[in-house]
Amino acid sequence: MAMDFFKSYFSTHADRFISEWSDFLRFKSISSDPRYHDDCLACARWVFEHLERIGFTTHLWESETKPIVYGVLEGDPQKPTVLFYGHYDVQPPEPLELWESGPFEPSIRNGRMYARGAEDNKGQVFSFFKAVEALVASGVARPTIKVVIEGEEESGSAAIAAGLSRWGSNLKADILAVADTQMIDPDLPTITMGLRGIAACGIEVHGPAYDIHSGLYGGLVLNPLQVLAKILAALHNEDGSVAVPGFYDGIQPPSAQDRSLANAAPIDFHASAEQLGVPLRGGERGFSPVERKGFRPTLEINGVGGGHQGAGGKTIIPALGFAKISMRLVAGQDPDRILERFSSYVTALTPDGVTVKVVDARSVGGAFQLSSSSPIISKAREAVLRAFGKEPALLWEGASVPIIPALAEAAGAEPLLVGFGLEEDLIHSPNESFSLKQFEDGYLYSTSFLSIL
Amino acid sequence: MAMDFFKSYFSTHADRFISEWSDFLRFKSISSDPRYHDDCLACARWVFEHLERIGFTTHLWESETKPIVYGVLEGDPQKPTVLFYGHYDVQPPEPLELWESGPFEPSIRNGRMYARGAEDNKGQVFSFFKAVEALVASGVARPTIKVVIEGEEESGSAAIAAGLSRWGSNLKADILAVADTQMIDPDLPTITMGLRGIAACGIEVHGPAYDIHSGLYGGLVLNPLQVLAKILAALHNEDGSVAVPGFYDGIQPPSAQDRSLANAAPIDFHASAEQLGVPLRGGERGFSPVERKGFRPTLEINGVGGGHQGAGGKTIIPALGFAKISMRLVAGQDPDRILERFSSYVTALTPDGVTVKVVDARSVGGAFQLSSSSPIISKAREAVLRAFGKEPALLWEGASVPIIPALAEAAGAEPLLVGFGLEEDLIHSPNESFSLKQFEDGYLYSTSFLSIL
Repeated sequence: MAMDFFKSYFSTHADRFISEWSDFLRFKSISSDPRYHDDCLACARWVFEHLERIGFTTHLWESETKPIVYGVLEGDPQKPTVLFYGHYDVQPPEPLELWESGPFEPSIRNGRMYARGAEDNKGQVFSFFKAVEALVASGVARPTIKVVIEGEEESGSAAIAAGLSRWGSNLKADILAVADTQMIDPDLPTITMGLRGIAACGIEVHGPAYDIHSGLYGGLVLNPLQVLAKILAALHNEDGSVAVPGFYDGIQPPSAQDRSLANAAPIDFHASAEQLGVPLRGGERGFSPVERKGFRPTLEINGVGGGHQGAGGKTIIPALGFAKISMRLVAGQDPDRILERFSSYVTALTPDGVTVKVVDARSVGGAFQLSSSSPIISKAREAVLRAFGKEPALLWEGASVPIIPALAEAAGAEPLLVGFGLEEDLIHSPNESFSLKQFEDGYLYSTSFLSIL
Repeated sequence: MAMDFFKSYFSTHADRFISEWSDFLRFKSISSDPRYHDDCLACARWVFEHLERIGFTTHLWESETKPIVYGVLEGDPQKPTVLFYGHYDVQPPEPLELWESGPFEPSIRNGRMYARGAEDNKGQVFSFFKAVEALVASGVARPTIKVVIEGEEESGSAAIAAGLSRWGSNLKADILAVADTQMIDPDLPTITMGLRGIAACGIEVHGPAYDIHSGLYGGLVLNPLQVLAKILAALHNEDGSVAVPGFYDGIQPPSAQDRSLANAAPIDFHASAEQLGVPLRGGERGFSPVERKGFRPTLEINGVGGGHQGAGGKTIIPALGFAKISMRLVAGQDPDRILERFSSYVTALTPDGVTVKVVDARSVGGAFQLSSSSPIISKAREAVLRAFGKEPALLWEGASVPIIPALAEAAGAEPLLVGFGLEEDLIHSPNESFSLKQFEDGYLYSTSFLSIL
């Protein structure tokens, strides 16, 4: 059967796969640092040429920032078209002194590849490339496969976001496949069934024209920090729910089956609590941890500041207090409408004596939420079962990858997120790694999935 | 009559007074900066020698920090003994570029002496010294006069506070005279009838062991900033009063007469509001501005911090939120008891999921409040009437001079604060100045007061 071929193909070519993957990892494709712009260009060029070798018809989409690599491998037009999204850029490697081997000198130790990007996202992307290579070599019927590999995921995805309307026709697909997520546990392939969106803004409370003496003016002038505290305290109800009117409007609740599947996932929240040193007491009463994270929106105060923050005391009434707010939104919520409601609610709390401004309001990205009854999820489950002899876990994730909903919409595709990362891979941290086992699992899943469509 | 003598003595000796005052101002006696320690010592020595020249029996009290100058001029034992308190140290002069003439190069322009310390406190202290000199020259009966001039008022008064018990017998007096306050208006000599005390502390809300991802943990982990806001919002009631139970216990309200005198003072709150750019909406409902500032305690949030404060957004749940709190207390309140009640109240607001600590609690200084019916106030009013032909204004002040209540207690004396400063003197700011008119008024008041005791 085909899976035997794919396993055998991996064994036969493993040394070459590792050697090519190492070449990919040597590029210092740090998108956030202009000093590495040429490294990013060279890396994009390498991806371009590698895809051509596999058989893709390839284009380099230039942008004002980093180029985007695009490729098409024609297949059976009766099968659903797959658009694979990934990124060739990486996080900065600092602090360098904590790396046991150079971040751009790939090194295998104890069955793990160590390098910046070993997992995020070069490792996961490259396991998909090798799956396509094997698929071509196998001669089995395949769908049309498109790939779009951007170079700014770690620094805002500006070029691809700006180009979606221009490149929309090239991106048209049925399935948007992404391998940039994690597994709940080793040996438990995981389908990420949803991501939350983000809306964000700042609050500023302006009081006296300058910081003033709290003895001369205490009791006369209303303290902006007192008002800021009242406003921030009014954002949540006693039961932990968000108090902004209309915040929960339109939410698409999960089906009873999805809720029960989500709660059945073997997520070790006890370990998280141990790691963080606090019991998990955030969010709304009446929902399990997995539901609070996966199906419910949140509003967080990401930062506050104002007045004296140094050592000791300073007896002032400060001129300004501010807070930074972000909201994680779920499917069905309208980020722009929520930002409007937030702004109205906050400014209505303003007492006479200060000025309150909601600033820098921005809808960063929408949410999406899949159902376990979706045909594409059935396909992915079948692919996992075929490759590994077990059912995948389904995870409704609380984080956000803002470009994915926008890309899915531009492509007219349903997102499908299956990644083989693990917490222990230390992405974004020193000593990032990806085990050869995880790399092979990602490859096997992709061969399985692509060959049953 | 004696006042004519004193006026004439001033005219005759004005050039010498200004010359000596300028010598005093040339010392860079910045107590907070160790680089100027020797300048502080030289300045103390100059004060010591000047008092000796006037006729005082003088001592230099050494301390671990700055020396204190002490002098006694014996007088009629039937008269009440006066202890005069002042300070020879000054605030740092920075920013230097904003001074029109050097801060330690005294310069007279348009009838005003410009220099750091021109008013605060060298100018006001020196007008008292010259009053004593004139009193001695006049030959009129005088009380025993003690002076204590410290060198750390601008940086905490540590040496004098620590030495009060040791030096108590030298400090014994009936009246503690201080010239370190201001007038409500030019040409309106003002008796400062009270000062508020200070108690202060910090609040820390500890959440997860480190800043965490608001997508992965939002809805799971309770945000310390959310708890901080709830706590800070719970410190004041909707009517602006302080919500800490027991906060108002024991307050000595003013007499009906004092309240009415306080409200009658011609204080231009409208001008303050204009200057600050905000209406005066702080403090408790049901009290006039002058009462809120002079007779009522306040609780102010002097600073808050936690999480992301830089540009743009950062989607975290921070590990820590903190606030800096200070309270201005009035006569009758027990600072230590209030700090205890504050701590109990705040920690009782702690929800499960975070740890709340009240830190660095300190009672900085007590309050005092005089009554207009006090005999010493009658004497001071008489002295003002005699020197200027008008009644003084009575001002119950909202600020604090922590050493005064402690010094008054150690001396067994009643404090009497009559100063001739004005807002326009710009104390603590660039281009500090004191007009020759204010200097002469301070001198005249002191000669008048000392000669009618």
